[in-house]
Amino acid sequence: MVIEEHNPGVTFAKGFTASGVKAGIKKSGKEDLAIIYTEKKANVAGVFTQNLVAAAPVFVSKAVAAKGMAHAVVVNAGCANACTGGQGMKDAQKTVELAAEALNISADEIFVASTGVIGQTLPMDKMAAGIKDAVAKLSPTGSEMAGKAILTTDLYSKAKSMTITLGGKEVRLGGIAKGSGMIHPNMATMLGFITTDAAVDSKLLHKALTDSIAVSFNMITVDGDTSTNDMVLVMANGAAGNAMITEENDDYKIFAAALKELCTDIAKQIAHDGEGASKFLAVNVKGAKCFADAKTIGMAVAKSPLVKTAFFGEDPNWGRVICAVGYAGIPMTPEKTVVSIGDIVVYRNGLGAEYDDAKLKDVMHQHDIEINIELNDGDVDATVWTCDFTYEYVKINGEYHT
Amino acid sequence: MVIEEHNPGVTFAKGFTASGVKAGIKKSGKEDLAIIYTEKKANVAGVFTQNLVAAAPVFVSKAVAAKGMAHAVVVNAGCANACTGGQGMKDAQKTVELAAEALNISADEIFVASTGVIGQTLPMDKMAAGIKDAVAKLSPTGSEMAGKAILTTDLYSKAKSMTITLGGKEVRLGGIAKGSGMIHPNMATMLGFITTDAAVDSKLLHKALTDSIAVSFNMITVDGDTSTNDMVLVMANGAAGNAMITEENDDYKIFAAALKELCTDIAKQIAHDGEGASKFLAVNVKGAKCFADAKTIGMAVAKSPLVKTAFFGEDPNWGRVICAVGYAGIPMTPEKTVVSIGDIVVYRNGLGAEYDDAKLKDVMHQHDIEINIELNDGDVDATVWTCDFTYEYVKINGEYHT
Repeated sequence: MVIEEHNPGVTFAKGFTASGVKAGIKKSGKEDLAIIYTEKKANVAGVFTQNLVAAAPVFVSKAVAAKGMAHAVVVNAGCANACTGGQGMKDAQKTVELAAEALNISADEIFVASTGVIGQTLPMDKMAAGIKDAVAKLSPTGSEMAGKAILTTDLYSKAKSMTITLGGKEVRLGGIAKGSGMIHPNMATMLGFITTDAAVDSKLLHKALTDSIAVSFNMITVDGDTSTNDMVLVMANGAAGNAMITEENDDYKIFAAALKELCTDIAKQIAHDGEGASKFLAVNVKGAKCFADAKTIGMAVAKSPLVKTAFFGEDPNWGRVICAVGYAGIPMTPEKTVVSIGDIVVYRNGLGAEYDDAKLKDVMHQHDIEINIELNDGDVDATVWTCDFTYEYVKINGEYHT
Repeated sequence: MVIEEHNPGVTFAKGFTASGVKAGIKKSGKEDLAIIYTEKKANVAGVFTQNLVAAAPVFVSKAVAAKGMAHAVVVNAGCANACTGGQGMKDAQKTVELAAEALNISADEIFVASTGVIGQTLPMDKMAAGIKDAVAKLSPTGSEMAGKAILTTDLYSKAKSMTITLGGKEVRLGGIAKGSGMIHPNMATMLGFITTDAAVDSKLLHKALTDSIAVSFNMITVDGDTSTNDMVLVMANGAAGNAMITEENDDYKIFAAALKELCTDIAKQIAHDGEGASKFLAVNVKGAKCFADAKTIGMAVAKSPLVKTAFFGEDPNWGRVICAVGYAGIPMTPEKTVVSIGDIVVYRNGLGAEYDDAKLKDVMHQHDIEINIELNDGDVDATVWTCDFTYEYVKINGEYHT
């Protein structure tokens, strides 16, 4: 597979256009409404938040995903349309109807997604004008603007694109996402949109997506809070002209591997740009009995405020790492476990290892740091990605709503 | 029961002495070694951390608790003696031997507890001198100094005392504890020591303790991190002269209720003095099907960094509260759930309620705030106590180790 340098995102695959406009929903006045559109109707799949307090757009989009085909996605930032009751459902439905009218397609083939403050209703007059504007501005180079329009407290857009070859045909995949806060995905992360011109049956598209999500979006955490609005959608419009993938053949394997790579890259970008983050941490758990055990231990370490603040302070306080491993709830043997920060062993045989202070200090100064936990209990590995906890996180979240 | 105003702590009950001295273990030079002693051997019970990476003193003290009788507790702060391997076990054992010699009692009747940095071995020369000094200074008014000597980043000592009457005899109970960081107890919190002059069989003492712990120390969280050193001990020396409690009679019920009250009060003091805390939050979950459900939901809210930073910022961002309720993993119905902050309803019928902004602002300005979550699913309630997440928490924990 070929990884694109410039990450043209959701408009890299043939037949997709996108746009991002200022509808006036965000207080900041920045871009806040995006549309992604495929002229040729696409096979689609989606995964959605497991939070029982799910937002209105989640219900509307689930119904679209269940049908397996769609034409477009409408996304707004600045208002989550969550905890908005019957009015919220009406507004989400009205949103797809407005987009259907402007795009001259059927409303039940349009996904809707929202992100922002919980408990406020969508300003529908602004949505109406914004949707018209966004449809007028749809462009084959519109992914960058769409990527900006879906952000909240994110510092930068997350995008990735790549090319694979299926049966001699060039097939493209690309995606955009938003993350930052309330990030502890369960089946899907805040918002992620992936497009491809591959021809893939929607059942296999769903399988490839859920397999990818399990090792990518579901392996990141910023603050342990699973959002009300999580959603990852993939649209495959078949414009590449490859033979439709209808079984788990070699083409499927190539496509699924590419999708996994794409999702993993974008998920890591979300952890990188976690709210207030000054460090990107990869927690590699090795030698576990099964993936679930490795993930649970990795998440315990990645969610620990004590671990996260220690890395913010560039303090190699490995005791907090092994402490989190011990309370994760998974059987483990302290004496068999080895903990390294970068390539420097800090804990072995049940106690602190001898190490070169200056070398460890160098590792702690870096922005990207690997925490390696070898359990010596089996042969399954898993990696969880997270960021540190900083003054800035407290600042952002003490002030976000008001 | 009569609650004491001045909280003479572990030396309130007859026959107990205590002391706290400067052994030179803490870098700050403050008191760091405490001894609690009962002349008359006491029936004892203890609960200990469930962390698989448990500290050496936990293993030594578990063996003492298993025998059911003890004379003394030796506690040091400034070094956790955790992740210290065979040397750590030798040092914990040597600690009780040094105390046994100085007190002229048997080493297997002495509890040992440690708190502080993980991964460092005890400075045994300082421990030896400190133990001699502490034994010399044992006093019937020594609880205050002992309470100081067991602290780490705590801002103040936690203590509570009360009096009950059993069969016409005045019976006293008192306790001290330390908390602050790495507080998310699982069977016991960081360190808590309770003394009573009640005569209670050690089996019933253990039952009363575990029942109390379940609704007190196990219901607080500061940062979601379960420590390697958690331990709560109770010593009952019988000096009050009441008829020995050997069955669950009326005397047992009075004693158990008092112990529960004592543990709850001390546990709340720990949440009050959580690292960097500027607010004390009581999360009251009502109308649950069972206690475990109510606790799980309360803990999800109390552990959420988004909820904790919102209260720090005095931002009534109730969306984060209902979001945490939704992802807790317990079945609940958003439309049936009512959320109040103080006595102001903020969420009802699946959406935000109308409320008086100024009144809610007044509630958010207070130091002690109640978050009420009525599930309307059953008749069981539970309360979890926590504190907010502040800049100071990040500061303390970015700088603690180095």
